[in-house]
Amino acid sequence: MSLNVRSVAVVGGGVIGASWAYLFLTKGLRVVMSDPAKGAEDSFKLFITKANADSDGSASDLQKLLVRFEFVDDITPHLPKVDFVQENGPERLELKQRIVASIDEHTRPEVVIASSSSGLPPSQFITECKKAPGRVLVGHPFNPPHLIPLVEVVPHPGTNQASITAALEFYKSLGKRPIQLRKEIPGFVANRLQTAINNEAYSLISRGVVSAHDLDAAVSSGPGLRWALTGPIAINTLGGWEQDILRNRFVWDETDIAKLRDEVNKSYGSTDWDEIVRERDSVLMDLLASKSKATSLD
Amino acid sequence: MSLNVRSVAVVGGGVIGASWAYLFLTKGLRVVMSDPAKGAEDSFKLFITKANADSDGSASDLQKLLVRFEFVDDITPHLPKVDFVQENGPERLELKQRIVASIDEHTRPEVVIASSSSGLPPSQFITECKKAPGRVLVGHPFNPPHLIPLVEVVPHPGTNQASITAALEFYKSLGKRPIQLRKEIPGFVANRLQTAINNEAYSLISRGVVSAHDLDAAVSSGPGLRWALTGPIAINTLGGWEQDILRNRFVWDETDIAKLRDEVNKSYGSTDWDEIVRERDSVLMDLLASKSKATSLD
Repeated sequence: MSLNVRSVAVVGGGVIGASWAYLFLTKGLRVVMSDPAKGAEDSFKLFITKANADSDGSASDLQKLLVRFEFVDDITPHLPKVDFVQENGPERLELKQRIVASIDEHTRPEVVIASSSSGLPPSQFITECKKAPGRVLVGHPFNPPHLIPLVEVVPHPGTNQASITAALEFYKSLGKRPIQLRKEIPGFVANRLQTAINNEAYSLISRGVVSAHDLDAAVSSGPGLRWALTGPIAINTLGGWEQDILRNRFVWDETDIAKLRDEVNKSYGSTDWDEIVRERDSVLMDLLASKSKATSLD
Repeated sequence: MSLNVRSVAVVGGGVIGASWAYLFLTKGLRVVMSDPAKGAEDSFKLFITKANADSDGSASDLQKLLVRFEFVDDITPHLPKVDFVQENGPERLELKQRIVASIDEHTRPEVVIASSSSGLPPSQFITECKKAPGRVLVGHPFNPPHLIPLVEVVPHPGTNQASITAALEFYKSLGKRPIQLRKEIPGFVANRLQTAINNEAYSLISRGVVSAHDLDAAVSSGPGLRWALTGPIAINTLGGWEQDILRNRFVWDETDIAKLRDEVNKSYGSTDWDEIVRERDSVLMDLLASKSKATSLD
């Protein structure tokens, strides 16, 4: 049934929820959003206005999107009507358990409930669900979800295959690139890979091998250009220095952290991050447009 | 003096040497190349014809480049005239020692001798140099050097600062992004970062968390898009799953390797790699063109 999603509940309208909602709207879906934070509706309107402008949309394009959008104080009475739920509440276990239990109670039992959680394994936050916890899973996006294709679909041991398949199909229908985790694991996949490279980066910098600036260039002017196009298995590089890496595994004592902090400040203390973020997102859009024409790349 | 490089000796004309030579020629330099392998000159001509076509060059563009190119059987009599040496011999220590000693003997003492070696630390291959080993260093490119900006400049403990600076300036003048290593370390920087992510990737796949295909997508549709634009320190992500990664560090026993092999075969057994490489390089050129306009990105 998720193959026929027409309306989505976006529960939680922070940065991630807002970006999901924008994506759903641009794909022709109806969106009902709730968020208890003060000014959440205004924040969303600001977000969507900017996102629309960044992708060269006109004011009338924006109005067309907003016709299918509704911000509500209480999502409960709307839940029986939606075909998919994307939950984006805070990463606090008890709160998440309550939110997901309430969504479970008020949605039709076959509707997939996906949480954007990046840290909580789904088996931990379904414990209060009484109705159909088998359709609950994690649908973890990368920020911002309306630009980055990856979505990690993470089932708990009781999630049924139909819901996993429906979630994968739904995200694919939006132009996303969902991946399926076969089991829960802390950090899921992409954040674990990021942690692996980060730990080695911190080690190299704090050991005085390279400046933080040059470390970053070693990625973004080198293998990072490959990683935007093909993953590490497809690239398949193996060298003889693994022993050395294991020998020098980074230990987080205060001296190491202080050295690292100094190096990062030296390289980035006076950086204009706004400009970097603006240009990064602009190039990213070019890159994605170019990459989408290459049918053999994932 | 390397700031005034007009002619370069390319010692060794395999894939890396050929790509360096093409880069030097497109930047207006004179190139003299040698390689003892049978058919090396013909291989280079094929390489440069393809590279020229890939970057939409005409036949007359190619002829203009080749006016400044000379392939020689013996590089020795040409060494006194060149302003920079890029050495690309095999990664065999004794051979490299002999090649570098001969280059040292026949070049002017202030000319920088850069080796493309990805594995041998320079302190090990300068042991036979009699004249001026202080101007020998590693200038490690990423394949193909004419496209990927990164060059790792790695001094040995006796390399003088003037030569390091000259090498960095020279590579910068070619549009490269050189980084400076402050000490020798196995794998240098970029390959160590690749190894870190690869080890975690192999671990996740062999533990059955994710398919090899989805693992690759977790990079190339996720953080890899960022890594093409900003490095890990600039992105600065830190999570709470490091403990889990340390607990599950990959051990290379035969069972693990067999599991990994199966998964890789499942995902990539029937892949058309030629097509992937072709499209990857085409998108890479688009990406680099787009990225070069973003002045705040490294």
